[in-house]
Amino acid sequence: MTGVDPVAGLPRPLRLGVLASGSGSNLQAVLDAAVPGVVPALVLSDKPAAGALERARRAGVATEVLRPRDFASREAFDAALVETLRRHDTHLVALAGFMRLLTPVFLDEFRLRVVNVHPALCPSFPGLNAPAQAVGWGVKVTGCTVHFVDAGVDTGPIIAQAAVPVADDDTADTLHDRIRVEEHRLLPAALGWLAAGRVRVDGRHVRVLPE
Amino acid sequence: MTGVDPVAGLPRPLRLGVLASGSGSNLQAVLDAAVPGVVPALVLSDKPAAGALERARRAGVATEVLRPRDFASREAFDAALVETLRRHDTHLVALAGFMRLLTPVFLDEFRLRVVNVHPALCPSFPGLNAPAQAVGWGVKVTGCTVHFVDAGVDTGPIIAQAAVPVADDDTADTLHDRIRVEEHRLLPAALGWLAAGRVRVDGRHVRVLPE
Repeated sequence: MTGVDPVAGLPRPLRLGVLASGSGSNLQAVLDAAVPGVVPALVLSDKPAAGALERARRAGVATEVLRPRDFASREAFDAALVETLRRHDTHLVALAGFMRLLTPVFLDEFRLRVVNVHPALCPSFPGLNAPAQAVGWGVKVTGCTVHFVDAGVDTGPIIAQAAVPVADDDTADTLHDRIRVEEHRLLPAALGWLAAGRVRVDGRHVRVLPE
Repeated sequence: MTGVDPVAGLPRPLRLGVLASGSGSNLQAVLDAAVPGVVPALVLSDKPAAGALERARRAGVATEVLRPRDFASREAFDAALVETLRRHDTHLVALAGFMRLLTPVFLDEFRLRVVNVHPALCPSFPGLNAPAQAVGWGVKVTGCTVHFVDAGVDTGPIIAQAAVPVADDDTADTLHDRIRVEEHRLLPAALGWLAAGRVRVDGRHVRVLPE
């Protein structure tokens, strides 16, 4: 078997840090899934009013807020993210609607241990407002992607994807509602595969071993 | 109901011209489907040895060959394509593995009446060797797209798409074999919807009306 297990040698349960900027519906999916081998240890937001923070408090998960304007550069902000995640002893990071690009300052510290969920079938429609991009293009099929984060915009190695049909009368919102069902299924699933030691990464190629 | 019916006012059955450079498996799918309201009237190839020509002869469909090297420019070649298609009184054109980009000389004559099938979920993996691109990227889901041809590379308004899973051990060939099953289903289906007057185009958006 070729490929790297990104969480080899780490203790279980894996302590998960979740970075979120918004309402945190993907965070809620992870909390609700009670993923075997994963414990949500910290929810970190760049926005003090993010709904994700309230969801974390309700679930008894620690929260932290770091405001980008309090830092002199993206790198300084990312260094603070790293320090905060380390302070909470997190091994693995999930981006759940975190609306910032991460710099190498962050990614080099958590190489292949940062997972993002993107509401499109990458490489289609990277970046912001992917469901609106899909509606604008006029595609008939879109979906969602769970992938390891690299320095590009939604370009990292793909762990899982699910296809979602687009209806003629979809708006970005109705389409995103349909995509979210798959996001909420795939993100906890991918975290569980990681915790179970079933994920192998070989360059851009990710295999999920059978149970 | 908004949108343009691209074949409004044309007589039935629609006389179909198929442009093919290769073995012609998509041509065969159209021949086998015996699409209601569509009659294959001409198979035109840029390669004298294209297997598609033999398939056409076996089915009793007229064939023509135009070799690009016999023409001074892409525009001159495309003008000859148009002349040949007109001589055979074709209303609608399907690209079935036709390995050339069409210029406005051609597209302006057959606006919204040229249909292509591309072995990826556009806008992912446009251009040549889409299944190899998908394997190289490491996607978990790809598919095929039937779309109207515009001046871009696989960028035109999408009529239909189908998702196809990628297996861990797929090569470009094994993946394309799986995609072809959907190509062979979607292309005849789309031609049938057109012939039945069920297709409406509004900018980039294509609706297929219920039967």
